Amino acid sequence: MQRMMFSAVLAYVIAVVLGKLLLPVLYKLKFGQNIYELAPEAHKKKQGTPIMGGLVFAGAMIATVLVMNDYSGPLTQNMAFAMILMALGNMGIGFADDMTKIRGGKNKGLTAKQKMAFQAVLALAFSAYCYFHPQIGSAIEIPFLRAELNMGILYIPLMMFVIVGTTNSANLLDGLDGLCSSVSLVAFAALSVIAGALSLGSLGVGCAAMCGALMGFLFYNVYPAKMFMGDTGSMFIGGAIVSAAMLMRQPLILVLIAFWMLMSSLSVMIQVTYFKKTGGKRIFRMSPIHHHFELGGMSETRIVAMYMMTTAVLCLITLLGVL
Amino acid sequence: MQRMMFSAVLAYVIAVVLGKLLLPVLYKLKFGQNIYELAPEAHKKKQGTPIMGGLVFAGAMIATVLVMNDYSGPLTQNMAFAMILMALGNMGIGFADDMTKIRGGKNKGLTAKQKMAFQAVLALAFSAYCYFHPQIGSAIEIPFLRAELNMGILYIPLMMFVIVGTTNSANLLDGLDGLCSSVSLVAFAALSVIAGALSLGSLGVGCAAMCGALMGFLFYNVYPAKMFMGDTGSMFIGGAIVSAAMLMRQPLILVLIAFWMLMSSLSVMIQVTYFKKTGGKRIFRMSPIHHHFELGGMSETRIVAMYMMTTAVLCLITLLGVL
Repeated sequence: MQRMMFSAVLAYVIAVVLGKLLLPVLYKLKFGQNIYELAPEAHKKKQGTPIMGGLVFAGAMIATVLVMNDYSGPLTQNMAFAMILMALGNMGIGFADDMTKIRGGKNKGLTAKQKMAFQAVLALAFSAYCYFHPQIGSAIEIPFLRAELNMGILYIPLMMFVIVGTTNSANLLDGLDGLCSSVSLVAFAALSVIAGALSLGSLGVGCAAMCGALMGFLFYNVYPAKMFMGDTGSMFIGGAIVSAAMLMRQPLILVLIAFWMLMSSLSVMIQVTYFKKTGGKRIFRMSPIHHHFELGGMSETRIVAMYMMTTAVLCLITLLGVL
Repeated sequence: MQRMMFSAVLAYVIAVVLGKLLLPVLYKLKFGQNIYELAPEAHKKKQGTPIMGGLVFAGAMIATVLVMNDYSGPLTQNMAFAMILMALGNMGIGFADDMTKIRGGKNKGLTAKQKMAFQAVLALAFSAYCYFHPQIGSAIEIPFLRAELNMGILYIPLMMFVIVGTTNSANLLDGLDGLCSSVSLVAFAALSVIAGALSLGSLGVGCAAMCGALMGFLFYNVYPAKMFMGDTGSMFIGGAIVSAAMLMRQPLILVLIAFWMLMSSLSVMIQVTYFKKTGGKRIFRMSPIHHHFELGGMSETRIVAMYMMTTAVLCLITLLGVL
C-alpha cells in the first residue's frame, strides 16, 4: 500500500511538471483541436485548444511505473507492464486519429476498417495473454456473489468484445472539459485499492500511478481546459482501465467503475437505433449523453461533478462487492 | 470498512435528495448572499445565490450517523456523536453570522466579542472532553516519527488554539464555488481511512458520512454554484474536521489534510501584518490566498482543482506517515 501511495504522489508531481513543459510545445506545434461541426454551439470557443494532452499522463504514468514497479517475478508476467503495453497499443490508434484531426482531415490517418482491424488484433493479443497468464486464466470473478465463472475458450472472444467496447467508450466519454480525466482518476483509485487488497503489487503501482497522473493532468484539463487529452489520451485510459480490470480477473466491475463510459456508448447506440427506426426522431437531445445534459441546461462543470461523484459512489459499491 | 463505505453512499444519496428539496425553499426565504463589497469584481454576479446550503450536508451527515453509528460502548464516549456535537456547536456560530448577512447587516447577530466567547467555551468544552476521554487523554501522536507526545494539562489550552484556528480557517477557505466542499471531502476520505485503520468504527462512520454528504452537496455547490454552504456550512466542516483529528489523537495531521485552510488563515495574517508594517503595501493581490490566485488570472475552477488535487496528494502523504 505504501508503494502505491508513493507511486500516486510521484506520478502527480511528474504530470504537473510535464504539463507545464508540454503546454507551450503543443501550442507551438499548432496541435489544436478542430471542434467537430456537430458539437454543441458552446464548444466552438474551444477551437484551437491543444490536444494530445494525454501524453502528459501517459508519460507520467509510465515513468512512475518504471521507477516504482515491483520487479519480482518474470517480466513477461509483470502486470504493470502488461497494462502499459495495452494502454500504449490503444494510444497508438488514438494518436493516428488525433493526427487526422490536426491536419484538418487532409491526412486521413487510419481508415475505419484499418482502425477496427488494429483494435481487434490488440484485443485478441491481450485476451490471449490473460488466458495464458498463470495468475489469470479463463475464469473471472463475479462480484457480490463472490463466485468464479470459468468461461473456457469463450473467454477470448468475450474479452475481445469487452476490450473494444471499453476503449471506444472511454473515447466517447471524453467530450467535456475534465470529464474523462476526473471520472477515470476516481476509477483508478478504486482499482488501486482492489489491486492492493488482492496483493497484486505491480498492478497496484500501475493503477495508483494512473490515478496520480490523471490528478496532475486535471490541473490543465479542468474547465476551462488548457489542453485536451485527445484520442491519444482517452484511448490510453481505455486500454489501461480494461486491462487493469482483466488482470485482476474482475472485468465485470467495469459496469460500475466505468459506468459513464458504458452510458456514453449505450446512449450513442440507442440514439442511432431510435433515429433509424423512427425515421428521424431523437430520444436524447444529443449523444453521448453528456451533451444531452448540457443542452438541457446543466453547466459543463456540474455535469463533470455529477459524473465524478456518482462514479465515486459506484466505486464504493464495487469495493463492497469485491473486498 | 464495509460500514463506512455504506455510510458514505447513504450520506451521498440523502444529500442529493435534501439539496433538491432545500434549494427552492432557500430561494423562497430569500436566504441569498449579499456579496462582500471588497470581494473580486467577478463575484458580484453571485449576489442572491442562497446561503445556508451547509444544512444539506449537515443534515445528511447527521441522519446517516444516526442510522449507521456503532452504538457499542457508552454513549458519552461515542466519537461520532462527539464529532456531531462539536460540528453543531460551531454551526450555531456560523448560523448567527449568516442571519446577519441575510438581513443585510440590520440584524447584527453576534458581536465579535460574543462570537469569540462562544468559540472559546466550545473549544474548552471539547478539549476537556478529549482530555478526560479514556481512549484519548492528553497525549497526541506524532506522524512519521511514530512517537507520542504527552502534553499533560497543556493539552487543553493548546487544543483550544487548534480548534479556534481550524474552524475560523475553514470559514476563510469558503470563498470560491465548490472550494471548501471539494477540499474537505478529500480530507474526510483520508480521515475515514485513518479511523478505519485505527479501528475507531464510530468515528469512521462519522468521517465517511461527512465525505459522502459533501460529495452530494458538491453537485449543487460546484461552479456555477446553485447554493453556498454559508458560514453555517463552513463552521460545521471546521468543527467536524478538527474534532475528528483530535478524537483519533492526530491533531498534527491537520497541517497536511487541512493545508489550504491553514494557508487561508496564514495568508490573511501575513497580508494584514505586512500592510500595517509597511504602511499600506500588500504582499498578496488579495487575501485569503485563493483570491490572490484568482486575480492572477487563474479561473475559479482551476483553483478548485489545484486545491483539491494537492489536498489529495497531501492526504496520501499523511496516510504514509500515520498508517
